[in-house]
Amino acid sequence: MPDPIITLTTDFGEDSPYVAAMKGVILGINPHARLVDLSHQIPPQHLQHAAFFVATALPAFPPGIIHLVVVDPGVGSDRALLCVELDGQRLLVPDNGCWTEWARRSTGQPAVHCVAEPRYWRQPVSATFHGRDILAPAAGWLSLGIDPAALGPPAADWVHLNMPAPERDPDGWTGEVVFVDRFGNLITNIPGDAITDSSNAHAQVAVGLHMVAQRVRTYAEAARGTTVALIGSTGMLEIAVVQGNAARSLQAASGTPVTVRSAND
Amino acid sequence: MPDPIITLTTDFGEDSPYVAAMKGVILGINPHARLVDLSHQIPPQHLQHAAFFVATALPAFPPGIIHLVVVDPGVGSDRALLCVELDGQRLLVPDNGCWTEWARRSTGQPAVHCVAEPRYWRQPVSATFHGRDILAPAAGWLSLGIDPAALGPPAADWVHLNMPAPERDPDGWTGEVVFVDRFGNLITNIPGDAITDSSNAHAQVAVGLHMVAQRVRTYAEAARGTTVALIGSTGMLEIAVVQGNAARSLQAASGTPVTVRSAND
Amino acid sequence: MPDPIITLTTDFGEDSPYVAAMKGVILGINPHARLVDLSHQIPPQHLQHAAFFVATALPAFPPGIIHLVVVDPGVGSDRALLCVELDGQRLLVPDNGCWTEWARRSTGQPAVHCVAEPRYWRQPVSATFHGRDILAPAAGWLSLGIDPAALGPPAADWVHLNMPAPERDPDGWTGEVVFVDRFGNLITNIPGDAITDSSNAHAQVAVGLHMVAQRVRTYAEAARGTTVALIGSTGMLEIAVVQGNAARSLQAASGTPVTVRSAND
Repeated sequence: MPDPIITLTTDFGEDSPYVAAMKGVILGINPHARLVDLSHQIPPQHLQHAAFFVATALPAFPPGIIHLVVVDPGVGSDRALLCVELDGQRLLVPDNGCWTEWARRSTGQPAVHCVAEPRYWRQPVSATFHGRDILAPAAGWLSLGIDPAALGPPAADWVHLNMPAPERDPDGWTGEVVFVDRFGNLITNIPGDAITDSSNAHAQVAVGLHMVAQRVRTYAEAARGTTVALIGSTGMLEIAVVQGNAARSLQAASGTPVTVRSAND
Repeated sequence: MPDPIITLTTDFGEDSPYVAAMKGVILGINPHARLVDLSHQIPPQHLQHAAFFVATALPAFPPGIIHLVVVDPGVGSDRALLCVELDGQRLLVPDNGCWTEWARRSTGQPAVHCVAEPRYWRQPVSATFHGRDILAPAAGWLSLGIDPAALGPPAADWVHLNMPAPERDPDGWTGEVVFVDRFGNLITNIPGDAITDSSNAHAQVAVGLHMVAQRVRTYAEAARGTTVALIGSTGMLEIAVVQGNAARSLQAASGTPVTVRSAND
Repeated sequence: MPDPIITLTTDFGEDSPYVAAMKGVILGINPHARLVDLSHQIPPQHLQHAAFFVATALPAFPPGIIHLVVVDPGVGSDRALLCVELDGQRLLVPDNGCWTEWARRSTGQPAVHCVAEPRYWRQPVSATFHGRDILAPAAGWLSLGIDPAALGPPAADWVHLNMPAPERDPDGWTGEVVFVDRFGNLITNIPGDAITDSSNAHAQVAVGLHMVAQRVRTYAEAARGTTVALIGSTGMLEIAVVQGNAARSLQAASGTPVTVRSAND
């Protein structure tokens, strides 16, 4: 049996001692835990970014992993804290919906418990850092083998975060950019097959007012500087500028409209 | 017995190969060592930031951990290198005082040795990177079980870093912002009970020239945009703007004066 | 036997889910793998930076480590993917030359295989993320003990990345800045002994049009603000401003010319 793995995803950045404190708390409960950083650069309190991150990253992990995801604009309110089991993975998270897109894309059914049993909390519990005082200890205890049901009662309901949904009509798709990566590639919420199914063999793709020049299978198929549409690594329609930065060239960002239009007239 | 844990905290940033080199050196000495990054984003050579980080993060860790903290503006001078034992943890650090605030807040007594025994150094020792050539190897050897006394003689004295101290007078407290986190929250050096003890039930808090509107237990208690004072997760007085950025709104930074004044006349 | 170590170096940054996905894939293949981040802040698609990073960082590691280095401007082209064995370490990397400077500085001979055997790939293989779908799985399988030869046939040739080479003439050296660290120190491609061998006892060092004031063994030997030349931690000539930032003061960056001139007339 390998030692248990706990991943950490936060919007804390890396100059503050907040991430370090969570790691210390986990190791104090289970010194065998193996800590794996996923990101501490989620934009501050940006739940949609966190939801995209979780929905994209977690399916790559095997069962048995414990994930701690702390983006928590509601800390100190009466929002619940949750332990979500899905596809054999366990997620500790404030009840803010940043995991529901992941669940929506899964074929599994989530089992959700509240993290509400003070015996597993760090004392005293601060009013502003439940990541350190409640969720990190819960991760430590889960990694020691306690059952999620020991953390608190089943949750009857939870916040659903609505991700922007693309619309399909007879002429094609209307969606938007949902993520811009470090290379300036624009990841959209339109399924990749929007540009590959036979009925759309001549579809035209636009980002805002910019027409996309070429449809490719991969960046390398077009000349440097060309704006291309392709199926990205997440299976979604992606817009890139070959060896360039599409976000900059097309002045696009999260939320910029993207359309796929049939051109068979 | 879990494999030994060595944490790393530096001001090296993450684009240079310096952190990687230290990790390689440690693993070359003890391939069983488990490396845990705390931060590599301490502002360059900023000892007060490092001291705040160490004093805040380390108390969350259990005994038995080895911490390597390399913020080293004096590298190549005759400043000593130290192995500090406190509260069952061991810290390898240049003698620059960035750990003395941690020690001041602890009830324990530090045992301090010089790291001066060349048999445990990486050879040749560079003149500019003692983190890689002296401290990282020392961490590796400690994790293998050698005694701190093997690294060098007891240190008779060491640098004390003076953190800005708040002042208390009959009217209240005068302190300053000592850390701004990624959310723009202002962490001060004034104890949190300055705003909770009964004699100060109506105390007024000011940051620079800005009066703080409301005293709360947690961010969620006031309306969006309100400037609030609360006891932060470190137990100190903290100033925040609800769902906003206090540093930006109040034009505050580390060093900005903060006052708590009684208003009972 | 310690659990196998896999290091990760990318230009993905830390807000995207790309690094996380690679970690998930590795742990899905070998849940015992120990993941060690080296950097995810290589400037986007900057092969020379990656080459400097690899050549500087990897020699600090012991044999037996598996390194995954994904800076991949050619993803989706017909560029090969490689498994390089050198000095007992194994490197998984697109065939873009970012490892050849490391090999040039080593006395060992690299053994190179193509990563071409689909049975070890993640399916389906995306057209744009071979780091996740081919190289990360290869790292996982190597860490389980398969032989590099199982990944694909020996590579007959590979891309060599030419790093800027310094020139030596009877009067001294002409080279350039190859890396600027977070402190603004300028690491050059001129060997450190250019300023220490006896024939150059009075050599003058210049960065662009700026003469370097003083030659030192370490930063601490000169007064604050002095521009100094020294042998840096990598053995190369380095230019620094004591307690300052040489890149800013001298308006220097990667590529800025550096000269060492004899002054014995």
